[in-house]
Amino acid sequence: MDNKLIVGIDLGGTAIKGGVLTKDGQVLAKGQIPTEFEKGVDGVLQNIVKLADQLLNSIGKSQKDVLAIGLGVPGIVDNNMNVIEATNIAWTNVDVINRMKKFTDLKVYLGNDANVAALGEAKFGVAKGMKDVFMLTLGTGVGSGYVIDGKIFAGNLGCGAEIGHAILKVNGEQCNCGQKGCVEAYLSATALVKFAKREMNKNKDTLLWKFDYDKLNTKDIFSLYKEDKVATKLINKYLKDLYLVCLNLSNAFRPEAIVLGGGVSLAGEIITKPIQKMIDKNIFAKSFTPTVQILSASLGNDAGFIGAASLCL
Amino acid sequence: MDNKLIVGIDLGGTAIKGGVLTKDGQVLAKGQIPTEFEKGVDGVLQNIVKLADQLLNSIGKSQKDVLAIGLGVPGIVDNNMNVIEATNIAWTNVDVINRMKKFTDLKVYLGNDANVAALGEAKFGVAKGMKDVFMLTLGTGVGSGYVIDGKIFAGNLGCGAEIGHAILKVNGEQCNCGQKGCVEAYLSATALVKFAKREMNKNKDTLLWKFDYDKLNTKDIFSLYKEDKVATKLINKYLKDLYLVCLNLSNAFRPEAIVLGGGVSLAGEIITKPIQKMIDKNIFAKSFTPTVQILSASLGNDAGFIGAASLCL
Repeated sequence: MDNKLIVGIDLGGTAIKGGVLTKDGQVLAKGQIPTEFEKGVDGVLQNIVKLADQLLNSIGKSQKDVLAIGLGVPGIVDNNMNVIEATNIAWTNVDVINRMKKFTDLKVYLGNDANVAALGEAKFGVAKGMKDVFMLTLGTGVGSGYVIDGKIFAGNLGCGAEIGHAILKVNGEQCNCGQKGCVEAYLSATALVKFAKREMNKNKDTLLWKFDYDKLNTKDIFSLYKEDKVATKLINKYLKDLYLVCLNLSNAFRPEAIVLGGGVSLAGEIITKPIQKMIDKNIFAKSFTPTVQILSASLGNDAGFIGAASLCL
Repeated sequence: MDNKLIVGIDLGGTAIKGGVLTKDGQVLAKGQIPTEFEKGVDGVLQNIVKLADQLLNSIGKSQKDVLAIGLGVPGIVDNNMNVIEATNIAWTNVDVINRMKKFTDLKVYLGNDANVAALGEAKFGVAKGMKDVFMLTLGTGVGSGYVIDGKIFAGNLGCGAEIGHAILKVNGEQCNCGQKGCVEAYLSATALVKFAKREMNKNKDTLLWKFDYDKLNTKDIFSLYKEDKVATKLINKYLKDLYLVCLNLSNAFRPEAIVLGGGVSLAGEIITKPIQKMIDKNIFAKSFTPTVQILSASLGNDAGFIGAASLCL
């Protein structure tokens, strides 16, 4: 029993990524197969089990060596682990736990993908050993996950921790959600690239023009930090906004750490160092309270299935 | 055992307020005595036990009829129920649980006063039966308490839920904490009165002048809602700011309810109705997620000791 393995599955709109792990987080096998969501819920669930079997088989193991399967879902998962809504795979009100019984005898755990990413960092990643961890995923959108007392906090019916749609600036930038001034409209990779293109159109001599305008990404922008005036100004503004969100989260909820993930976070210390410095300086009641650590996520591309696997513990 | 009573103590800088309750929240006796914090920690703890004994005695009961004492403290209480800092009563690093053993054999529970107020509303008040409840206390300052899964969430070392010092407006109003633009600098009763006086000095014909300028309070201001242009504008601006905080809390943490307490909340539906309407309209992903109820606190002046008593359950 104690030597049993855990399986983590990261369910995406295009691909199902998975891994077989030991209980201390070592990845023994990983791989992916197409989601084929057009085959319906059962089709996707069968693909999940198929991937798990393939991965187990590749290391000479089978389902009987496994403790449980953890599943990260791109949508709203309620506290009973029903999927309320997952737009990318066209699921509405799916009782995954029960439907999985048709395809496997293994115990199945479910969580929202941003939430399980946070759990993964707290169990196996950069925040290993911490109990209260907030994770901000700075990617196409801004995802967020909250681990409290070592467990995912998902709010009423699993709808919590959507910090991406808290308002950062009243009447600010238009957000895809319909509101104006959302955190996501400032801190997503998409937003930073948008701001950069806006500046490029105003500054024909910025070094940003050495990149392909249509394919500009945040890595390009950060590569010019302190080298190009326009890029540096853009990044400093981005850091100020990100700091504000981190400060508010720190004062309002005082986690042990805020973990930054997603594409933007690959800039590493360019982001974490100045924000840590400002947090240390300005956090509320700093003379007699602990600060909040600002960390870059460490699980990288495997964060999805590793986080999902951590649901099994 | 099942018929045992609970005692709640609200420890303030000037007075210790207390009550004896049944386990379903019925108040059988209540009263107060001076804190006398200048007598030191033991002096205050003795006063707490003295008040408890007096109250029990008044209904023909004694400590043997009591399950436990709950204590709400105006300061930072860590997760082991040590008081880290309580400025108003001059306590630093006080191990209350152990020191109380000198004065009573009863089990003692401790919590920050804003946090226990939230717990009280969730156990016995307007949010009775709910598991995830956020409470904002709009008084001299802005306090906040968060109940998650029926328990107080206090963050790392008990420093969480200081939403009063999250930034509402960058470079906004000066806050007493040193930052600019804090929630407290906009939503405390103190802030509303300050804004009202600012407007009075600009508008000699506002009806606000019928009140004593030096003693102006939020009740005065709300009494002129929809009657006086200046007061109405002030209140509408206040509601907009409060709505923003409620929306952000709703999207970021999706509690079942946000309970508004403190002096300002006595305005009742003038506040809760328009904010509920805007939340229902704008909450993230509203088509498939539950809204957040905006409620006025119901425990009134007794909230402190009733909340403290709820720690015993």
